[in-house]
Amino acid sequence: MEERIEISILLDIYGDLLTDKQKDIMSLYFNEDFSLAEIAELNLTSRQAIHDLIKRCNKVLLDYEKRLGLMKKNLEVEKIKKTIINKLDSITDVHHDPSVINIILDIRNEIIEKL
Amino acid sequence: MEERIEISILLDIYGDLLTDKQKDIMSLYFNEDFSLAEIAELNLTSRQAIHDLIKRCNKVLLDYEKRLGLMKKNLEVEKIKKTIINKLDSITDVHHDPSVINIILDIRNEIIEKL
Repeated sequence: MEERIEISILLDIYGDLLTDKQKDIMSLYFNEDFSLAEIAELNLTSRQAIHDLIKRCNKVLLDYEKRLGLMKKNLEVEKIKKTIINKLDSITDVHHDPSVINIILDIRNEIIEKL
Repeated sequence: MEERIEISILLDIYGDLLTDKQKDIMSLYFNEDFSLAEIAELNLTSRQAIHDLIKRCNKVLLDYEKRLGLMKKNLEVEKIKKTIINKLDSITDVHHDPSVINIILDIRNEIIEKL
């Protein structure tokens, strides 16, 4: 996975373990595509200070992932959900009893929207 | 939820964010039912030091849950899984086409064992 995308996903998962300031700066850089200079200006600090903060937070996020592995688990869950959806679809593809179809579609929705 | 059980669940979820020593002591106290005195003796320290460490780690674990809410999410996922299993069972209860039944049982297993 491209590092920028990986950090953006990790920020989504573990961002609430950072301070508000760290989270805001990381989000501006990785999600809103602000430059180091722009973030430095907004925070009345130097480009170098922002660079260091981002580098430090990257390490912290990667360390959380190393310990808890939530990104890896989420990716696995998404794969399993897809497999299950495909199996549910294989029933509705060949089966036409409305009572069965309705329950299957209901389960399909719950898996996609709630799990 | 009883506090002891709650801390034991939180330890299971966030334990890897503690140091090895903290995790070991918390596990002895909450999972293996060791007394403060026994843990103190094992660690060549005072009962008070162990008491303080446990109290501090409890706070840390509760703070992780406040920030990431993984225990709450896990409980919600378990509820949704149960709802889905019941719906799958409602199909196999009345339906007897083996090709459908086999796929449903397969999905049931994947939900219980992998999600």
